[in-house]
Amino acid sequence: MKGAFYEGNKKFSVGESKLQAPGLGQVRLNVVYCGICGTDYHIYLGHMDQRVKIPQVIGHEMSGEIAELGKGVAGFKVGDRVVVRPLEPCLKCPACQLKYYHICHNLNFMGIDSPGAFQSTWTVPAHTLHHLPDTIDMRHAAMIEPVAVAAHDVRLGQVTDKDYVVVQGAGTIGTLVALLLKIKKACVLVSEINKFRVNLARELGMEVVNPLEIDLPKYVEEQTGTAAADVVFEVTGHATGAEMMTKLVRTRGYIVIVGVHAEPVKVDLHRIFLREIRMLGIRVYEPKDFEAAISLVASKALPLDQLISDIRPLEQVQATFEEIERGTNFMKVLLKCSD
Amino acid sequence: MKGAFYEGNKKFSVGESKLQAPGLGQVRLNVVYCGICGTDYHIYLGHMDQRVKIPQVIGHEMSGEIAELGKGVAGFKVGDRVVVRPLEPCLKCPACQLKYYHICHNLNFMGIDSPGAFQSTWTVPAHTLHHLPDTIDMRHAAMIEPVAVAAHDVRLGQVTDKDYVVVQGAGTIGTLVALLLKIKKACVLVSEINKFRVNLARELGMEVVNPLEIDLPKYVEEQTGTAAADVVFEVTGHATGAEMMTKLVRTRGYIVIVGVHAEPVKVDLHRIFLREIRMLGIRVYEPKDFEAAISLVASKALPLDQLISDIRPLEQVQATFEEIERGTNFMKVLLKCSD
Repeated sequence: MKGAFYEGNKKFSVGESKLQAPGLGQVRLNVVYCGICGTDYHIYLGHMDQRVKIPQVIGHEMSGEIAELGKGVAGFKVGDRVVVRPLEPCLKCPACQLKYYHICHNLNFMGIDSPGAFQSTWTVPAHTLHHLPDTIDMRHAAMIEPVAVAAHDVRLGQVTDKDYVVVQGAGTIGTLVALLLKIKKACVLVSEINKFRVNLARELGMEVVNPLEIDLPKYVEEQTGTAAADVVFEVTGHATGAEMMTKLVRTRGYIVIVGVHAEPVKVDLHRIFLREIRMLGIRVYEPKDFEAAISLVASKALPLDQLISDIRPLEQVQATFEEIERGTNFMKVLLKCSD
Repeated sequence: MKGAFYEGNKKFSVGESKLQAPGLGQVRLNVVYCGICGTDYHIYLGHMDQRVKIPQVIGHEMSGEIAELGKGVAGFKVGDRVVVRPLEPCLKCPACQLKYYHICHNLNFMGIDSPGAFQSTWTVPAHTLHHLPDTIDMRHAAMIEPVAVAAHDVRLGQVTDKDYVVVQGAGTIGTLVALLLKIKKACVLVSEINKFRVNLARELGMEVVNPLEIDLPKYVEEQTGTAAADVVFEVTGHATGAEMMTKLVRTRGYIVIVGVHAEPVKVDLHRIFLREIRMLGIRVYEPKDFEAAISLVASKALPLDQLISDIRPLEQVQATFEEIERGTNFMKVLLKCSD
């Protein structure tokens, strides 16, 4: 059994990953594919060294099969194809008491706060599993986790089919949010500065603009008859995105914060006051978002083959993160975790 | 007829205010009292010279009586005691089309964008009037406008009677918000640094803390059993308030932006994302908030005599603004506009 261990200081080692027998309520999985998330890249850069216990296997966007059942596990059998919803809430904190388990204050985000899926075998609690229909390709199944993020964003984002929506940032999550909004029949405008992402989003049928090349607030006003956007999804995580978002949204419209802003950024609270704008932070997913994502992927409504830029053997983990750092043009890269 | 004219450069002149005969749909009022609002102070400081047409009578927190009716005015008669809801929407802009008339994009805020009530006679559209019950003291009636602001904030601020609420900033609006929250049976904590305001809020029965003297997030956590506040009203308009607000609110709680932040300020969007916090900009009032404010003032449920720090003749307008600038300890000052 092999695993990719984050060693700190932008280094991974690939080595023997010990087979961990499943305990009470646990299962051991054979991991087939695991995607590289923006969060994994933050780990690589050292931004999350306080949470990761070096050396640690990371990764959480996986697909796999059940290899072994621990005691007390019902509803699953060896050979079942599954994905993991990688969140373990504490069940005690104020968020858990309000039943917001997915944003538990002491959340164990598996693959960050505990070992992850960049390995050929992974032992996890059975309550984190979702069954996969037989028809889903295991490569596509590794996209279910980011699809669930987008499904959660769109479900809570107050979008209706009559809405004009701007998605700022067309990485994997922004692109999936835009795709789900189109399925919801909203009118979507994507804002992105990276040429590879602009081109990909256009290939997927999106209207895409580069805010460095046009006057975006003016364009949105023209498109909406001066009303501005009903909803803006801020998925860039950049200060420029935070500056732009309040300029694009209409009176009593919604700004949804999806991107990770590592540092406090300047926000035009006066505009929020003046236009009675609403802002919503939305993060990860609840079980029903995972189920919705599985249904969506099973329905083949999403162009996942176009979003998966490459599939590489686990052994190429170091080279792949280095390529991402050099800005090579990727959307999603999957690591093949078993032979 | 006399009026106080803002002349620019921190200067008022008191002089003859021309009696303006009411046109179609208008009434002419005798103004009895008009309060000095924080907005009036911003005008004095020159912050709103782009909107005010110098020399201009300002002021909008008034009480008065109808002196003369224009043609086409129904439901009012000479001698009626009234207050003015000083908002004239354009009825055409995107906000008006969505029926958010109070936040019209081209709002005529009477007393800012057009002549106001720091004068003994004021001609206004009849649709801006609200009748006063006979029992309301005209000094208290001049407080109806700020009470309506607070009523709008609390109505839209998602507060329930089980909630723990922090009000940041105990000026007139913050104090009124806190008083209305107590009437709503919420548990209220007021945060304020000005000693006069701290003392006044305490005299009014509030729990008040100074965030410069205690660790406010820790205190709120202790008070709420680590859950943090259900709702935070940010009424300071200061960068320190914007920095503090995200630290005080619970997972899926609400931040209500009531204070005017003249410049973009740093906001911890990551905390908003992490805790799925909701932020709401809330401004001025709708007609039902004015009606609610009139009922509240008529019921004598509010300690308005304690909030009215002084009543002065209109002629003292210059000296009064200069005192406010020196930080003299005031809450609300009313100008007596007729003899």
